[in-house]
Amino acid sequence: MRPSGRAANELRQINLTRHYTQHAEGSVLAEFGKTKVICTASVEERVPRFLKDKKSGWLTAEYGMLPRSTHDRMQREASTGRQGGRTLEIQRLIGRSLRGVIDLAALGERTITLDCDVIQADGGTRTAAITGSYLALVDAIHYLLSKNLITTNPIHGAVAAVSVGIYQGIPILDLDYQEDSEAETDMNIVMNEAGAYIEIQGTAEGHAFHPHELQAMLNLAKEGIRQLLTTQDQVLNHN
Amino acid sequence: MRPSGRAANELRQINLTRHYTQHAEGSVLAEFGKTKVICTASVEERVPRFLKDKKSGWLTAEYGMLPRSTHDRMQREASTGRQGGRTLEIQRLIGRSLRGVIDLAALGERTITLDCDVIQADGGTRTAAITGSYLALVDAIHYLLSKNLITTNPIHGAVAAVSVGIYQGIPILDLDYQEDSEAETDMNIVMNEAGAYIEIQGTAEGHAFHPHELQAMLNLAKEGIRQLLTTQDQVLNHN
Amino acid sequence: MRPSGRAANELRQINLTRHYTQHAEGSVLAEFGKTKVICTASVEERVPRFLKDKKSGWLTAEYGMLPRSTHDRMQREASTGRQGGRTLEIQRLIGRSLRGVIDLAALGERTITLDCDVIQADGGTRTAAITGSYLALVDAIHYLLSKNLITTNPIHGAVAAVSVGIYQGIPILDLDYQEDSEAETDMNIVMNEAGAYIEIQGTAEGHAFHPHELQAMLNLAKEGIRQLLTTQDQVLNHN
Amino acid sequence: MRPSGRAANELRQINLTRHYTQHAEGSVLAEFGKTKVICTASVEERVPRFLKDKKSGWLTAEYGMLPRSTHDRMQREASTGRQGGRTLEIQRLIGRSLRGVIDLAALGERTITLDCDVIQADGGTRTAAITGSYLALVDAIHYLLSKNLITTNPIHGAVAAVSVGIYQGIPILDLDYQEDSEAETDMNIVMNEAGAYIEIQGTAEGHAFHPHELQAMLNLAKEGIRQLLTTQDQVLNHN
Amino acid sequence: MRPSGRAANELRQINLTRHYTQHAEGSVLAEFGKTKVICTASVEERVPRFLKDKKSGWLTAEYGMLPRSTHDRMQREASTGRQGGRTLEIQRLIGRSLRGVIDLAALGERTITLDCDVIQADGGTRTAAITGSYLALVDAIHYLLSKNLITTNPIHGAVAAVSVGIYQGIPILDLDYQEDSEAETDMNIVMNEAGAYIEIQGTAEGHAFHPHELQAMLNLAKEGIRQLLTTQDQVLNHN
Amino acid sequence: MRPSGRAANELRQINLTRHYTQHAEGSVLAEFGKTKVICTASVEERVPRFLKDKKSGWLTAEYGMLPRSTHDRMQREASTGRQGGRTLEIQRLIGRSLRGVIDLAALGERTITLDCDVIQADGGTRTAAITGSYLALVDAIHYLLSKNLITTNPIHGAVAAVSVGIYQGIPILDLDYQEDSEAETDMNIVMNEAGAYIEIQGTAEGHAFHPHELQAMLNLAKEGIRQLLTTQDQVLNHN
Repeated sequence: MRPSGRAANELRQINLTRHYTQHAEGSVLAEFGKTKVICTASVEERVPRFLKDKKSGWLTAEYGMLPRSTHDRMQREASTGRQGGRTLEIQRLIGRSLRGVIDLAALGERTITLDCDVIQADGGTRTAAITGSYLALVDAIHYLLSKNLITTNPIHGAVAAVSVGIYQGIPILDLDYQEDSEAETDMNIVMNEAGAYIEIQGTAEGHAFHPHELQAMLNLAKEGIRQLLTTQDQVLNHN
Repeated sequence: MRPSGRAANELRQINLTRHYTQHAEGSVLAEFGKTKVICTASVEERVPRFLKDKKSGWLTAEYGMLPRSTHDRMQREASTGRQGGRTLEIQRLIGRSLRGVIDLAALGERTITLDCDVIQADGGTRTAAITGSYLALVDAIHYLLSKNLITTNPIHGAVAAVSVGIYQGIPILDLDYQEDSEAETDMNIVMNEAGAYIEIQGTAEGHAFHPHELQAMLNLAKEGIRQLLTTQDQVLNHN
Repeated sequence: MRPSGRAANELRQINLTRHYTQHAEGSVLAEFGKTKVICTASVEERVPRFLKDKKSGWLTAEYGMLPRSTHDRMQREASTGRQGGRTLEIQRLIGRSLRGVIDLAALGERTITLDCDVIQADGGTRTAAITGSYLALVDAIHYLLSKNLITTNPIHGAVAAVSVGIYQGIPILDLDYQEDSEAETDMNIVMNEAGAYIEIQGTAEGHAFHPHELQAMLNLAKEGIRQLLTTQDQVLNHN
Repeated sequence: MRPSGRAANELRQINLTRHYTQHAEGSVLAEFGKTKVICTASVEERVPRFLKDKKSGWLTAEYGMLPRSTHDRMQREASTGRQGGRTLEIQRLIGRSLRGVIDLAALGERTITLDCDVIQADGGTRTAAITGSYLALVDAIHYLLSKNLITTNPIHGAVAAVSVGIYQGIPILDLDYQEDSEAETDMNIVMNEAGAYIEIQGTAEGHAFHPHELQAMLNLAKEGIRQLLTTQDQVLNHN
Repeated sequence: MRPSGRAANELRQINLTRHYTQHAEGSVLAEFGKTKVICTASVEERVPRFLKDKKSGWLTAEYGMLPRSTHDRMQREASTGRQGGRTLEIQRLIGRSLRGVIDLAALGERTITLDCDVIQADGGTRTAAITGSYLALVDAIHYLLSKNLITTNPIHGAVAAVSVGIYQGIPILDLDYQEDSEAETDMNIVMNEAGAYIEIQGTAEGHAFHPHELQAMLNLAKEGIRQLLTTQDQVLNHN
Repeated sequence: MRPSGRAANELRQINLTRHYTQHAEGSVLAEFGKTKVICTASVEERVPRFLKDKKSGWLTAEYGMLPRSTHDRMQREASTGRQGGRTLEIQRLIGRSLRGVIDLAALGERTITLDCDVIQADGGTRTAAITGSYLALVDAIHYLLSKNLITTNPIHGAVAAVSVGIYQGIPILDLDYQEDSEAETDMNIVMNEAGAYIEIQGTAEGHAFHPHELQAMLNLAKEGIRQLLTTQDQVLNHN
């Protein structure tokens, strides 16, 4: 039995709320159970220096946690003066994941920044961030289309993410904090709507995991991501 | 006529929501119209080095803005590697304001940190932060009392804050962003429940302001803060 | 009786020495009793990026303290790698105060930087810095006029600053360090020659201050600043 | 045909040279073809603060590249003042990989730091770093055993790493820089001697990769790592 | 003929003013012509970590320039966030020079910090700083002796410094800024009262210098330092 | 008798290996006994801002030590976030020394960066770095000539460096770490092929050194550098 009482292949309650704040071109509150992440997509009419005169746009991501989004208060990274390794790792992952479904040349010479800020953390913040950022990105693209700043949609796929792990020998889906901290293996999977992988990141915590365990986790993730993609679809078609 | 359509002495819609997030000992969402600030109070059983063996507690504050809480995206301070002067100024103001209503010796050798994070900005973020932080502080103290970590309440007053300004020659209360950016004078007032000042910070933007203008602004602030203190009271007595 | 033996409304000995160092376009040693601040005004033929092509000049200020300007040695901010919150707060105050008396468009596309460095501290360093910086600014403008770099004087007012406070229940003027560290309230007032406020910053230290105390402090400040403006005038007309 | 002319399942020439520098307790030059990484293991008789009084040792890793280890000169991270996201990500990966084969409690209250410095880069620096660091770690443990600082060997497994990818639709093993920069997918696999996974990190570059492609890459990696483990063994038994 | 009109072996007007500021245990204004450096010696009853329990004191130095001590305004190092290489080099030189005349064990477990801040620069700031710091150090030691914190004087020699150079082929003493910027060679010499070298730092600017030129510069420096030591002596014996 | 067993005027075994790594335009491994430094020269087709439109090239140097190049592990400067004073001092010395033998105008508007990274330290790393960098620079210039990017050789001299010191009263040449740490005086000399000085840096450690000791050290250095220049020549003419 999982600490959360869920079935091994059961997602937490997923809520994706669009238009959560008012200034950003896309703004989504992504909730995976008690995990809450604000994902905003901001459009800026400039590109980083390395893309100057390259006829291409850019998409990047930043990630942060409010100091008391966690059980114990964490130091504010703005105050310590540097983003930690975990933060940089996660924001690089979010950026790659979203770049996996957009044609940057078709975006034009502009930058979309996805800011993922964790308001409350209970495990799976990076997968909630990716899943919510996709919707924020879609809304930012809708904004550009509605303003005739672009004429064709540069998004060529949908993307969602979920965590899987081995808990007391059993593969489980969408770990909350308690499950995650006791899991022997922790893996994050990012997939597109065609069932292909954009990112796989698996880490043995307690013991190394075997190929059949990997396969079981991949199967769970596939099913979970299919549900997340469906939820995204419903939210987009709702209003 | 103010851009917001409000009367000169009219506050925006004020909402103070307690227990907004789950981990912090106190957690309040403070809304002054469209301005939304999450205020958490975190208790830690340690004091900063300068209070070592001084038989005193400490209270401090930190302030941040989500990068897209504003109309245009701001750079993330964690990423630039330093908190700007405005941030430091505001968090010092919040800290002093709340220290104005607590007896640090009675708090015992522990630290309360008030984290004020702006989710959406529309003017008056620092006054919303102070007004909300007071409630978060009260809840954190209730937590300490309920755990018998302290036996007497170290809070000896209530505190709230509001902005006032001169807009097109007219003193007005609780400026939103548009009003603030066009105001000739901008002033933030922090008062306690006895009508005494804890902080006054006034800045001439367009032209220097005269003593009678100062007096008119102080009168507006007094009335506004009286209403804010009443709202705090209602929220505390509600549940 | 004040620790300094002065009457409640008595300034310390004020000395403002122009042409104190040789390289800067304006250079003033401002002495408020034992407090000594070197204020230099430097002209540079460039503007910060945010004013590019805006047909406007800029005025900014920086503030520092020599490590042993204080009773105990302070860490050198260049060595710790960041300017503290107090430093940033003071230099922002100085900048706003001086921008309050200059027409930046009439200055032309150039920057004037006021560097205020405390050689010896005994309370009131920020008010000495503002009062001295005004003279340094005037000399820098004279330099620009004498070189025909500008043809009309962009300065449209005079500015001076003084501190006031409540010491053992009595409002007093121009606090030295000992008085300041024991005061219940500390307030800095910046005024122009028309008796209008450019900045008001008041902080309750021991107890919140009442409207009548505020009024008494404002009255003291008005008188003190009138004397400081007279001294500035005399120094400017002397050579 | 691969740019390198190798068969799809062919490793580059692997050289692992122990005792490469003289000061470190373990020091290995790891060469994967033209990629050269110096891996040193340093023993220090202290633990980080979070392990104070926990009766446990620690193992951590740091990674760096000489500025001209790459085709174009990179900025020196010591000079820019911060380690980039890629650096932090790699050194965290190395640390986790090596912690996967050591019992930290059995190590005693001391820290082993693995420094992996790239002298020449041609793809696969992180996998060379992990593979070489294992030998450096073994030598550092031998040092501790020989000095009777520990009496039982805390290493409970062997570890090696290799990269795999999809190049022009074909899964290939151990990519050099040219292959890596043109690959559609890039994956790093860390395994132990039992064929179980310690880390899997796969990233789609050009297009998302399908489950059967993932499987093919995992098969290649398994075979490559088997060979690397054999080479490690030979080098350890040689002298 | 030198630009300054001085004879080749002629020092500038040297003024060493003790008790220049009031807080430091030693405080000296060192003037070499127009070059003005405030040198303070601060005593702190602690030692750096590397001397913990070593029964030794420590002496260190810090150096800074006011932003407009120079002809063109320099960026403030506190604002850029790091001390430049020149600053670090100079403060290390000052520290080594003064440690050359003090017995740190006899100082007891305390630290003396020499802060050398340039108020006005016209060449030779580091040599003025060393020459003035010696007097500040002597006064700080007198303070310790007068308080009976130490009973024997740990200073075992006197130290002064001067610059020499080759200007248009002629060796000259004590270069001002204009001479220094046109010199082909620039050398700083630190000597004790016995005529022995504590530091020699010579740099060819325009062309490499020959052994006979080196010898001529050393001769000039010896004579100049003899005069500086005499001036120090007179100032110490004056009051 | 020196700890190393060498004669007072005897260099360590000197090896200078060209083409040590493959990417840089010049790449040399410089070995002075057990001291090993990789020196690379990188050509970039840009100049720093201060040389913009000045029709001149630039040459600069950076220096670093692998964390375990030393007996005890040093903190990685990339990780601490700043280069220490010693590092900055050494890289400034290397830069000046090499600029002493090149005509920057003849180099054209490009920058050559010499990166000197210490793989193993046993005293004299800066002198090995200078001596090796000269060869790396020569190779980088050969590259530019061979590509017809420049048509005349801007190098107008050869340069090498060596350390000398006083050990137990005896002047000795080319100190290793043990000798250096026990020496009473430590001096680094940089000379060109004409026997003229480019840099002299001498520091008294234990006691101040006398003119006749200085002379003896200079004599030793001259002879040592003559041998180093000969070795450079042989290596350049070998292939």
